[in-house]
Parts: sequence; structure tokens; C-alpha cells
Amino acid sequence: MKVMVILGSSSDMPVAEKCTALLSQLGIEHGLHIASAHRTPDEVKKLAEGPSDVFIAIAGLAAALPGVVAAHTIKPVIGVPVAAKLEGLDALLSIMQMPPGIPVATVGIDRGDNAAILAAEIIAVTDKAVAKKLVEYRAQMREKVIKEDRELRK
Amino acid sequence: MKVMVILGSSSDMPVAEKCTALLSQLGIEHGLHIASAHRTPDEVKKLAEGPSDVFIAIAGLAAALPGVVAAHTIKPVIGVPVAAKLEGLDALLSIMQMPPGIPVATVGIDRGDNAAILAAEIIAVTDKAVAKKLVEYRAQMREKVIKEDRELRK
Amino acid sequence: MKVMVILGSSSDMPVAEKCTALLSQLGIEHGLHIASAHRTPDEVKKLAEGPSDVFIAIAGLAAALPGVVAAHTIKPVIGVPVAAKLEGLDALLSIMQMPPGIPVATVGIDRGDNAAILAAEIIAVTDKAVAKKLVEYRAQMREKVIKEDRELRK
Amino acid sequence: MKVMVILGSSSDMPVAEKCTALLSQLGIEHGLHIASAHRTPDEVKKLAEGPSDVFIAIAGLAAALPGVVAAHTIKPVIGVPVAAKLEGLDALLSIMQMPPGIPVATVGIDRGDNAAILAAEIIAVTDKAVAKKLVEYRAQMREKVIKEDRELRK
Amino acid sequence: MKVMVILGSSSDMPVAEKCTALLSQLGIEHGLHIASAHRTPDEVKKLAEGPSDVFIAIAGLAAALPGVVAAHTIKPVIGVPVAAKLEGLDALLSIMQMPPGIPVATVGIDRGDNAAILAAEIIAVTDKAVAKKLVEYRAQMREKVIKEDRELRK
Amino acid sequence: MKVMVILGSSSDMPVAEKCTALLSQLGIEHGLHIASAHRTPDEVKKLAEGPSDVFIAIAGLAAALPGVVAAHTIKPVIGVPVAAKLEGLDALLSIMQMPPGIPVATVGIDRGDNAAILAAEIIAVTDKAVAKKLVEYRAQMREKVIKEDRELRK
Amino acid sequence: MKVMVILGSSSDMPVAEKCTALLSQLGIEHGLHIASAHRTPDEVKKLAEGPSDVFIAIAGLAAALPGVVAAHTIKPVIGVPVAAKLEGLDALLSIMQMPPGIPVATVGIDRGDNAAILAAEIIAVTDKAVAKKLVEYRAQMREKVIKEDRELRK
Amino acid sequence: MKVMVILGSSSDMPVAEKCTALLSQLGIEHGLHIASAHRTPDEVKKLAEGPSDVFIAIAGLAAALPGVVAAHTIKPVIGVPVAAKLEGLDALLSIMQMPPGIPVATVGIDRGDNAAILAAEIIAVTDKAVAKKLVEYRAQMREKVIKEDRELRK
Repeated sequence: MKVMVILGSSSDMPVAEKCTALLSQLGIEHGLHIASAHRTPDEVKKLAEGPSDVFIAIAGLAAALPGVVAAHTIKPVIGVPVAAKLEGLDALLSIMQMPPGIPVATVGIDRGDNAAILAAEIIAVTDKAVAKKLVEYRAQMREKVIKEDRELRK
Repeated sequence: MKVMVILGSSSDMPVAEKCTALLSQLGIEHGLHIASAHRTPDEVKKLAEGPSDVFIAIAGLAAALPGVVAAHTIKPVIGVPVAAKLEGLDALLSIMQMPPGIPVATVGIDRGDNAAILAAEIIAVTDKAVAKKLVEYRAQMREKVIKEDRELRK
Repeated sequence: MKVMVILGSSSDMPVAEKCTALLSQLGIEHGLHIASAHRTPDEVKKLAEGPSDVFIAIAGLAAALPGVVAAHTIKPVIGVPVAAKLEGLDALLSIMQMPPGIPVATVGIDRGDNAAILAAEIIAVTDKAVAKKLVEYRAQMREKVIKEDRELRK
Repeated sequence: MKVMVILGSSSDMPVAEKCTALLSQLGIEHGLHIASAHRTPDEVKKLAEGPSDVFIAIAGLAAALPGVVAAHTIKPVIGVPVAAKLEGLDALLSIMQMPPGIPVATVGIDRGDNAAILAAEIIAVTDKAVAKKLVEYRAQMREKVIKEDRELRK
Repeated sequence: MKVMVILGSSSDMPVAEKCTALLSQLGIEHGLHIASAHRTPDEVKKLAEGPSDVFIAIAGLAAALPGVVAAHTIKPVIGVPVAAKLEGLDALLSIMQMPPGIPVATVGIDRGDNAAILAAEIIAVTDKAVAKKLVEYRAQMREKVIKEDRELRK
Repeated sequence: MKVMVILGSSSDMPVAEKCTALLSQLGIEHGLHIASAHRTPDEVKKLAEGPSDVFIAIAGLAAALPGVVAAHTIKPVIGVPVAAKLEGLDALLSIMQMPPGIPVATVGIDRGDNAAILAAEIIAVTDKAVAKKLVEYRAQMREKVIKEDRELRK
Repeated sequence: MKVMVILGSSSDMPVAEKCTALLSQLGIEHGLHIASAHRTPDEVKKLAEGPSDVFIAIAGLAAALPGVVAAHTIKPVIGVPVAAKLEGLDALLSIMQMPPGIPVATVGIDRGDNAAILAAEIIAVTDKAVAKKLVEYRAQMREKVIKEDRELRK
Repeated sequence: MKVMVILGSSSDMPVAEKCTALLSQLGIEHGLHIASAHRTPDEVKKLAEGPSDVFIAIAGLAAALPGVVAAHTIKPVIGVPVAAKLEGLDALLSIMQMPPGIPVATVGIDRGDNAAILAAEIIAVTDKAVAKKLVEYRAQMREKVIKEDRELRK
């Protein structure tokens, strides 16, 4: 499994689906688990010690999950703060403000999609097929904006 | 050990010392450990599974420590947010906004003293000697304010 | 009465119901009162001076209730901030930032359920029957997450 | 006593002194007390039930003092949030966000001076001598700004 | 006119209605105007220089209205922040953080009702009829809470 | 006078000096006044009705000055929030969140320098000499960064 | 083209329409483009280097667009923060807190209308026809408020 | 060059030095440049289009640099918010809240050290020598905490 996606709670599924849909579109093999830093900490540890290349951890509130995954691996861990209370400010700070030595690569609030892109970018450092997919995806985004711009003036 | 005090980092010592000084003053047996939810997670787990009646966890930034202790015990866990960045708002939200089922009893920013009082109050529910000490401490506080008030008008 | 639950206003009832439902499920005897730190301060004082082992105070806005209860007892007081304005940030800070000597054990915004669990944990320090219920509740939560995880991959 | 100034803690004295200095300058009879909503609640109640025309309550952190004073009187209560933690945001919200029916007239962070002016304005509604002093004070402020402006261009 | 209520915009009417309804109930003569610190500054000045005993200014966003009224009178000015954007945090700070010498008595976000009570309290300092109405209103509030509390246990 | 710079208080002078120094350097004729929206509102009105092409208003706290200037002119008004309390968040929101129809062109906290540049850019729309100065200033900034970059690798 | 309006995303269209409607009403020639600082940076650069007198850039989230436009022109750039997450606080700070030397004239959250007025004010510095339109618009706003006020008392 | 570190301003050097020191310690070849998204946008573009495997962009205020680098490359871009104003909240949101499709891997405020670790983790996905260094670094951190803990109880 190249990328392991972990949700802190089943209520985070809408954000996770934006993530896995994009990983599939980019042709990146991935797994999906629900595991909670507070309710199933041993399962989180087991997953974090697994052989995936990149981890994506999605959580709201006192979102300890990404940091706890990072505590058990030296693989890159991407954290996605989910807006449950306080518009996601609690999750954002809980994920991003990691202590020295154990980073979490934090993306924007509810941005499961950007977690997928970042995971792909990490894999693409040495995987030319994924890099090509990313270049195409980037070009499509660009074309979409340019097309929207053109239609605006019709 | 009645109360186990755990610091997330040696930089949290000034807050911890306010805590242990007050526990000593109230005659409550306690231990003190440095253990990090992110750097020494297995040690945190071991401590959390120990026989203490109450845990106090002191941490700053993405302060996962209190929640991770709470994940491994059904004993009351008191969390103290330490102001390192953003005036402690990050630690405050990381500690207090726990998901359903796993509470952390959060006290004010840098309030190691209040964590000690709260631990004593919990023990005092069934320990009359500690309850008596708390009543005395409360009375002393009251006297101190009343004395300050009286001196104000001299 | 083991646990006394006090609401600052009838509008806090949905949060209180999450609390009392869980106390009932854990077999903990409890009372429920509406009393306002600002509108019925004498009633709050009378309740706070009662014989309960643990107090839970639920309030929004300038949520003085938990602190005012704590001012009149040395029993543990658990505070639940309710989101009425500013997503509950006002209540959160009003409850948590108590001065030295008078702590309130603050749980997350709208987390009546976690107040119940915390009260149970405090009682369970010396009450083995409640401790057993908490261990079972914890195990059920764990099983629920593990089951959700398993169903995810079907 | 026309105006009763109450501090929540002796550490609030610098803010209180800005207040009492200005009350003296405006010739308004006033008293000064330290009394804590959490540490000496009965003293606060006694003060609040006293015969003063206006109350000024100065407090930091979970600043319950102004609201608790307001709970025991129908006289106008002016609240001054003191910056102790979080730049005073905690005290500001704890004082200002009062529930329906029990207002606190909140002034700016650390603005003991403005609490004095506001108390004077309230008294001046029916006291022409104080009104005259306020008009003079206003004129002096105006002159000071105009003089600073003039000196700027010399 | 005892009390002059000024709205910054017709969109603030729901908050103003809570205010005028309560002023009427308390038997306090009052006027109601729409006038904008930014769109009709000369009208604001004219109103502020009028003979009312107390001003209530209701405004959202960069809520300059209460401060601008205060700039033109030494009568007490009560400011009500209205939540239009940022949950009213912008209006709250714009109204409360007045410079030295020119206070605005700020009440809670959208609390038109509390502005009315505060105005009544100011008038009641020397008006016994209004004081009596406030004592009655306070008693009714108290009875309402006590009745809700009693019904809770039926 | 092309540009009129107005300070709300003499304490804002350090921010104003960054502004006037840069206006002088860009060869733009300007005046400097202290005038307060709350303490000398009539002076503010008089200045705002003057013949300047652009106004720069610098203020902290409940920074009504830029908006009040804008209320009395259809000339562009640039607002500079000064950090006095709450790191300038109060001034920032008080200046920027203007109601529909009366904009203030807000620059960053304490950014007197950027207010000068923005004023110059506005004048430069039709003044080629100022445009040329701005192009040169831009080029110098660019050269400075490039030089710093080069020295980094020596 | 006097004014060039650029949207960071098609989702910002409702804010842009408030802007272009007002520009049309004020008789100011303008263009409208979608171009993204992050997805079509070269298109943004091309637009920013065009001959317009004033730029209006509308963007949410990490709203780099206004600053990136400003990086490529010495023409005044007006930035409009759009509320997408965190009520627009992210966009507001991303747009307003520009470094020394490259200002963005920031207006309020979602205030496309005020961006149009500000652009018109800038053009009106030397264009008497636009100035006249602004004076009329200002008068209409004033009349509207005065009329609303009058109807209030019928 | 494996890793390219870019600072938005020479004032960000203390944060950059924590980063480059750690990259050197982990044996990772890296370059260091000052380039500003707003003052030298063309240089930023040139750097971003270079052949580095990972980019680290360090910036304060309206920190557009990381996002602008990300706009010109599909390589992973790590963003470090620097606390200049508002305790770094402005930079944090400007960096993290990127739109869909263009992520920036954000680390904590002023955490140049964690940016270096994260870059190393990304490289270590396929580089076993770097992975070994990270495992050693992790073990040293762990030992340091355990040693501090042991000394605490001497």
C-alpha cells in the first residue's frame, strides 16, 4: 500500500472521500482505515508501524491522530483538520503545532483533496508515472480556469 | 502514588513546579515524569497504565499528552495547557476539545496550581484528611483576600 | 445524590440531556437543576453547598455558573461550555480561565456526554462498580470503532 | 459612597488606580475594595447589596466579578477587563457576554480610566456639578489634542 | 425623551426591537432613529447633541456609531454590537475598545434587551418608579427560572 | 497638499513617521495632523472636507478615524491599524469592516510605509513623475533582495 | 479598460457581481477575468502587467491573488477577502498583511461593492465626471437612510 | 540540490538557520535563497522551476511565498509560517489555507527545524541512508527525553 488514509471517526468520511477519490484518479494504491488516537490507540500504533510510504490522517476537534501516527513512524504524515467545532480552528492548531522533531504536513481545513495531491507529490519525487499524472492534473486545472475565464466574456 | 504528574517537555517545568509544590503542601503523594506523546509514546502509555488515582498532564503547542494519557486509562486526567506559541490557545484547544467518550479535565493556561487543587478535590471526595486540608487552604485564600482588602483602606 | 447537574438556562437542555442520559447508562445517581449564576445566585449557592460528590455546571455566554458553584464547594466541579454566540469561545474562556485556587474541570464545547464520563471517572477512583462500567463503556467504544473500520473495507 | 470600585485581585491594582485617580479628579466620592467572586463570594454579595449608586468591577481571566456584582443589585455595574492571559480576550468575553436581563456596562481592556468617566456620566445625568466637571474634562482633552496638533507643525 | 435609540442601519432592526420592547415594558419614554456614522454623520451629530438622558447605539461591522455618538455628548452611551460578519467580533471590538476619555458602555453581541435594562438602571439611580419596575422585572426573571427548575423535576 | 496624513493620537507617531518619511522620499507633498474621531470630531470633519487628493488616517483601538474621515469625503481614504491592544486586531477590524458605500483602503498592522506607497500609487495613476519614482523604488527593493540573496551564498 | 476585476475562482462570482454592478452604475469601464495566483499564475502576471488604471482582486482562503497582482504592477490594487472558511479571516489576513513596499488596499469581507466605490474614488481624483457620480451616489445613500429614518416614526 | 530553502525576507533568517542546521546534520544537500513572492516574483518562479526534489519556503505576514512556489512546481513544498505580527496567525493561515489542487505542507509557527525533518522524511521514502539518519535522530530525541526524565527523579 503506497498511501494509508486514516480517519479519526466515521463522521470524517466526507473529507476522506475527497481524498480517496483523488488518489484513485491519480492511480495511487491506497488503504482506508478508521482508527482513533483516543478510542483505539493500539490500532493507530499498529497502522502507523505498517509499511506504507505516506500516511494521511484526517481528524477534527483535539485532532491528535496525525501527531500520534507521526510518533510511530518516520514516514511523511499528512494531517487534514476537519471543521467540527470552532470552524476547524481547534483541529488546525492541534495538528499543525507539533513539537520539534516530529512534524505533521498540515493541509487546509477539510482539504482531503489536497492531502491526496501532496501524497502524490511526495511519491512523484521518484515515481515518474505519478509525476506525469500530476503534470496532467495541473494542466487540466489550468485549462478549467482558462475556460471559465473565456466563458465569462461571452 | 496518588497523583502522577507528567510533563510533555522539560520546558514545561515552571508550570509543573507550581503544581508539585501545591500537591506537597496539601500532603498528597505524587510522582513527576517527563514523557512526550510524540517523542516517547510508549513511555506515556506505560505511565498511563500505572496505578495512580489521578493523572496531571502538562503540555504546550499541539498538546496531545493529556488526551493520549486519557486514551490509556479510565482514571481522571487533568490537562494543563502551557503558553508556548499563540499565548497557549493552541494547547488549550488541543487539550480541551476531546472527542466523545474520552474527557480531559482542562484547567486554565499555565495553571499548574489549579491542576493540583483539582486533583486534591477529586481525592477528597472520599479522603477526609485531604478534604480538611482543602477547606483550610480555601479559608487561607479567603483570609488573604480579606486582609489585602483591609490594608487597602488603611 | 452522587452527581448534581446544574444548567444555567433552559436553553442548555440539549447539552444537559447528553449528560444525564450517560449518567443513567453508567448507573450513577444524579439530580438536575436549572439555576443561574446571574438570575438566581442564591439558589446556585444553596445547590453548591449541598452534599453531592461531583458537580456538573452547563452554561453558555459569560458562563459564570461553573466558577460560582466552585466558589461555594471544595467538591470537583466540571464545567461544560455551551455554544450560543462566537461558537462557544466566550463560554469556554469564561469557564476555563479560573483564578489560582478555584479550578473548574472544563470539558469540550457542548460536550455534556464527556462531563458525565469525567464525573464517573472521579467516582470510580474509589467505586469499583462504576469503574467496571467505565471499562465496559470504553471497550464498547473501541469495538464500535473497530467494527466501523472493518465494515469500511467490505 | 457614590461609586464603589471592586478589584478581583490585588494584581489588578494598576488598572484600579487609573480609575480612582480620575474619580478623585472629577470630585466623585468613591470606595475601593478587593473582593473575589471565586475566593470571597459572600463579601462580593455584601458589597453589591450596599447603597452605592454605581459599581465598577475590575477583573482578569474568567472575570466573573462584574457579573456577580450585577446579580445582586439593580444599580449600573461597569466592568473592566484586565489583560492577564490571552491579551485580555478571556476577561473581555467573560464580562461582556452577559445573559438577557443582567447587563454589565463593559469598557475597553485595562481601561480603568474610562470606567471612571462612564460612572461620572451616569451620575451626571442628574448631578449638574459632575456634568460641569465632565464638560471641562472633555474640553481639556480637546485642547490637548489641538495643542499637540499645533506643535506638530512648528 | 429619556432614552434615544439609534440604529446604524435598517438591518439592525431585530436587535433594536428587543431593546424598544423592553423600554416600553419598563415604562421608559424613548425615541428611535436610523442614522449612520458613515452615511449620515451630520444627523448622528445632531441626535447626539439632543437632550436625551441616555443613548443606545446599535451597529454591526466597523461599528463606529456608538463611539461617534459618545464623541458629541457627555451623556452615557450604551453600545450594542450586532453580529453581521465574524459573528460580531468586529462590531464588539469597534465599540468596546474606545480610547481614554470617551467610554462606550458595551453590552453583549445582539443584546438589545440588555441595553434597555442598562439604560433603565442608569435612569433608576435617581428615579424610584423605574427602580421599582427593575426590582419587579428582576423578581419575575428569578421566578421564571425557579419555575422552570421546579417543572424539570415533575 | 496632495496627501493629508492624520493621526488619531500622538502615540501613533512612530507609525506616522514611517509614512511621512516615505512620502518625502517619493517627492509627494503632504501635511500631518493629529485629530481624534472621538476627542476632536469637528477638527476631523474640517480636515476631511479639505482639498487633499488622498487621505491617510492612522489609529489604534476602536479606530474610528479612517471611517469618519471617509464619511466626509469622496477622496480615497487609506487606513492604517496601529497595534495598541490585542496586537492590533481591534484596530484592523474597526478600520476594514466598513459598511456598503463608504470604503476605507486598509493596509497592514503598523504599516505606515505601505500607506505612503499606496497613496503614491493612487497619485501615480495620472502623475507620471510619481509613477517613475515608484518604478525606481520598486527596482531598488528588488535589487536589495537580490543583493541580500547573493551575499547569502558568499 | 479603466478597472480590471480579477476573481481567484468562479465560486467568488457573487462577490464580483456586487462589484461590477456598481462599476457599471458609476459609468466606469471595466473588465472581468478569472485567474488564479496558484492555478494560472502566468495569466495573473499577464493581466497585472496590462494597462488598467486600477486592479480589483477578489479571493478567498489563502488569498494570494491581490498580493501577486500587486507584485507585478505599481497601479493601485484593491483586495476583497471572500468568506469561504473561518468566516473569511484567512483571506482577510492573507490580503491585508502585505510586506513593506507592496501594499494592497483591502476592503471588508465579501465587500465587492466597496471595492467598486474605492476604485471609483481613485479614478475620481482626476476625473470630474466620476467624482460627480460619486457625490450623487453618496447623496442617494444619505437620502435612503434619512427616508428609512422618517418612515420609522410614521 | 536535494532541498531548496527559500526565505521571503532576510528577517526570517533565524527560522531558516534552524532549518539548514538540521538539514546539514541529516546529511541532506541543500541550497538557501532569499526571494520574495511580492518583491522578486520572477526570481521565485525561476527557483520554483528548478530541479530540487523538495522546497522549503519560510515567510511571515501575508506569507504568499510557499503558495507561489507551489504554483510553479509539482514537487512537494513545505511552508513555515514566521511570527512577525499577530503571533504568526496571519502567516499560518496564508500558508495553510491553499485552494484545491495546490497543497502546501505546513509545519508549526517558526518551526524551521520541523521543515527540515519533514523534507528528510520525504527524501527517506526512497533513500535508505537518510531513513537511517532519521531513525537515529528519532532515537536520540527519545533518549534525551528519557534521560531528562531520569534526572528529574535524582
